[in-house]
Amino acid sequence: MQSINEVEQWNVFEAAFEAHTDGNPFTDVSVRATFRNGDTEVEVEGFYDGSDVYRIRFMPESSGIWRYETRSSHIALDGQTGSFLATQPTGNNRGPVRVHDTCDFAYADSSRYVELGTTCYAWIHQNEALREATLRTLSASPFNKVRMCVFPKWYPYNRVEPSLYPFEGEPPQMWDFSRFNTEFFQHLDRCVLELRDRGVQADIILFHPYDEEEWVVEKRSRGPHWGFDRMGPEIDDRYVRYMVARYAAYRNVWWSLANEWDFVKAKSEADWNRIGRLVSESDPHNHLISIHNGFRIFDHSQPWVTHVSLQSDRAWEARDHRERYRKPVIYDECCYEGTIEHGWGNITAETMTSHFWTSMVGGAYCGHGETYYDPTEELWWSKGGVLRGQSAERIAFLGQIMDRAPRGAQPLGQYGGWGIEGEYYLIYLGNRQPVRHFVGLPQDVEFHGDLIDTWNMTIESIPGKLSGNVELHLPGRPYMALRISRAKQ
Amino acid sequence: MQSINEVEQWNVFEAAFEAHTDGNPFTDVSVRATFRNGDTEVEVEGFYDGSDVYRIRFMPESSGIWRYETRSSHIALDGQTGSFLATQPTGNNRGPVRVHDTCDFAYADSSRYVELGTTCYAWIHQNEALREATLRTLSASPFNKVRMCVFPKWYPYNRVEPSLYPFEGEPPQMWDFSRFNTEFFQHLDRCVLELRDRGVQADIILFHPYDEEEWVVEKRSRGPHWGFDRMGPEIDDRYVRYMVARYAAYRNVWWSLANEWDFVKAKSEADWNRIGRLVSESDPHNHLISIHNGFRIFDHSQPWVTHVSLQSDRAWEARDHRERYRKPVIYDECCYEGTIEHGWGNITAETMTSHFWTSMVGGAYCGHGETYYDPTEELWWSKGGVLRGQSAERIAFLGQIMDRAPRGAQPLGQYGGWGIEGEYYLIYLGNRQPVRHFVGLPQDVEFHGDLIDTWNMTIESIPGKLSGNVELHLPGRPYMALRISRAKQ
Repeated sequence: MQSINEVEQWNVFEAAFEAHTDGNPFTDVSVRATFRNGDTEVEVEGFYDGSDVYRIRFMPESSGIWRYETRSSHIALDGQTGSFLATQPTGNNRGPVRVHDTCDFAYADSSRYVELGTTCYAWIHQNEALREATLRTLSASPFNKVRMCVFPKWYPYNRVEPSLYPFEGEPPQMWDFSRFNTEFFQHLDRCVLELRDRGVQADIILFHPYDEEEWVVEKRSRGPHWGFDRMGPEIDDRYVRYMVARYAAYRNVWWSLANEWDFVKAKSEADWNRIGRLVSESDPHNHLISIHNGFRIFDHSQPWVTHVSLQSDRAWEARDHRERYRKPVIYDECCYEGTIEHGWGNITAETMTSHFWTSMVGGAYCGHGETYYDPTEELWWSKGGVLRGQSAERIAFLGQIMDRAPRGAQPLGQYGGWGIEGEYYLIYLGNRQPVRHFVGLPQDVEFHGDLIDTWNMTIESIPGKLSGNVELHLPGRPYMALRISRAKQ
Repeated sequence: MQSINEVEQWNVFEAAFEAHTDGNPFTDVSVRATFRNGDTEVEVEGFYDGSDVYRIRFMPESSGIWRYETRSSHIALDGQTGSFLATQPTGNNRGPVRVHDTCDFAYADSSRYVELGTTCYAWIHQNEALREATLRTLSASPFNKVRMCVFPKWYPYNRVEPSLYPFEGEPPQMWDFSRFNTEFFQHLDRCVLELRDRGVQADIILFHPYDEEEWVVEKRSRGPHWGFDRMGPEIDDRYVRYMVARYAAYRNVWWSLANEWDFVKAKSEADWNRIGRLVSESDPHNHLISIHNGFRIFDHSQPWVTHVSLQSDRAWEARDHRERYRKPVIYDECCYEGTIEHGWGNITAETMTSHFWTSMVGGAYCGHGETYYDPTEELWWSKGGVLRGQSAERIAFLGQIMDRAPRGAQPLGQYGGWGIEGEYYLIYLGNRQPVRHFVGLPQDVEFHGDLIDTWNMTIESIPGKLSGNVELHLPGRPYMALRISRAKQ
């Protein structure tokens, strides 16, 4: 019997090959492989990982025997073959998250994915103690997606040089953009895997605008700090290809082209579309792709955009975005719970929790972030660490309610809440404080009602069965919801 | 010495004349008068008030001797002359409110008018005990303007027949639209005067849409209840002329063409413009004129519109409306503090108070209303009576702060609050909870700072003098404001 490598379906198969070049191994050598399993054939790009090692990573999307063969301009990398057995997934391995049913998400094994996001934009750039704190906090949190940047961040509360940079060279600006710093990316590999092992999606932000010095009066401009926001199309595209080659095999990766795309001055809308198409065409595993706005919402009808990623605190517009784009909608940034001086970073826990509820009953998803002022400048929103606020546990409570809601629930008309007609209704009353609410249920069906206090996290059963036109009584305080479910026979 | 009648400037001079007609005294007889004081000449329309009595009302806008002469198709009313002495105003008589300095208001004596409005749409249609309660409540309240309808209201929480109707006939629909019910209007006279005596502006709503039966399935329509919302242009115009003839001499009158103009199905935008021009052209005393929207904001650039009357809970848009129309802006309806089942009637006291602050620091004004559910259906918003909520006293607190603010304060750029550069700044932080706020003050001037808790109604002096770039500390809870005033030398 021949022994064969085994890899779980949707885990990473990796093949490593040694080869030497006197030139630049990042630009002078390319390697790709074709993976085959029955009629399925997948083309995958490899990447150089330093020390004369080239790697090819691949995520088997079906079980069974996969065989591959490489092609390369370098003779040592060309014509290499191999095979492995993709086994059934185990544990929390449910495959990558995909668009499901137009405006929702599901794992590849078709199990449910209810997005509860947060942001730790620069967590990978922090010291080990802080990074570990972030992972501990995430494990204990309801969050199943983190927005995170590849490039370090130079911004208020983020004026620290990281220990690793994505390019070889000398900080802050003497970069050899033709050579990636493989140590940096090996670190990023670990970060993505650490999230994957905790069931957390890594919403990887490929570009961002937080790379400017403070305003220099004499120069009448803001100079670059590192210049990663203005590398030009050739370097951008090489970087994007490298990211896709290196990370597409991780099932928990999502591609976010930008945070605040319109604040990145050196790129036009055409640049973003070129990059979006490049990611879409080069990713063999078709991960989710989005682009997050500053002031100006991107044209999310572009075919490479898989879902609508928004910065907006107007979660009540969720239905409009759903109808306009026919794609899932995530309010990835709705301001952050916290106490800093910036308007985007000082909403209350009540408001943050309310944004989540409003998004959810509008058929959309939401993203959390936390910016409680602290003189150490360790704010969760960017550096990670610990959570100090009060919304996370309420978001967990909402997550439990969503997990128990029937699949296929949708927004039900302007005032009807969210659910499935005749089966299930979830009505959120936000910061309003009515003492009564009228619902029109089918006459011939019995329903059970629950009064939910979304802030105090209580669920109180409404006595009796409900049918037809019903007046429901409420306590006259904000942040209440009503859940009405068809009674079991 | 000849004795002469005396009337205070901006009070009502009234002349009454008897005449009999066998026809319809409302339609067959007209009477007008020319009032002269030096070079000033004012044309005034009279009106029939029942029992063969015609009245001419006039508000002297300058002191001194005024002489008048009548003209009429009826010989008994023609060529009547008289005179009176307009004396200096006393007490709270500061004349009518006018537009001042483009986007603000002032009384005719140029004293300040900071609008703090409320609504008691149908208070004039209630029984005497309730009407008196309304007046007592108003006297003890901060409110200096009431929005009120002439026509009775048929609407949720308002399904009561009034004791008086504006036309002769039989309720609910057998009206002689050619004959006004003078008893009704004599009652309205008293109501307007009762407000005037309390220093409250009567924002008289000439038309409204709340005159429909509930949806009738068989008829596939909502029939009219009384039909005052669909009388047709001829009757509408006669009614408007009658209102102007009867009420223009009251200094506290404002004309509001409609509540929710776009919900009045029987009138087009052209009708509203015709009515607006008619009011503007026929009112000898040039009272303020506005028109309030449902979903669709009216074209407030029409020349007859003196100020922007809005239904909107987006008070942060005040500056946009100011810039667009170059007229004062009043958020006459921003939802009501209360607990009823309707979305427009169940905001919290915190939100209502916040709408007032946000409007004010945006250079606009706001309107309160209250809809706490009560089984008696006596809700302040429409019937008046008593206030049950918590915003009115906070609005009074805001009013005191506004009264002490320097005149001429304006919105100061996107993030700068409201005030006068180098003199005074009022910064409202709304439902945000920062622990610090940075301000850039002139370097060479000393300022005094106050920390204002708009909800708890406290003003705490910030120790020391402030100059240049300053970091101010806040308690990290919502609804705070900062007031920074140039220190006295």
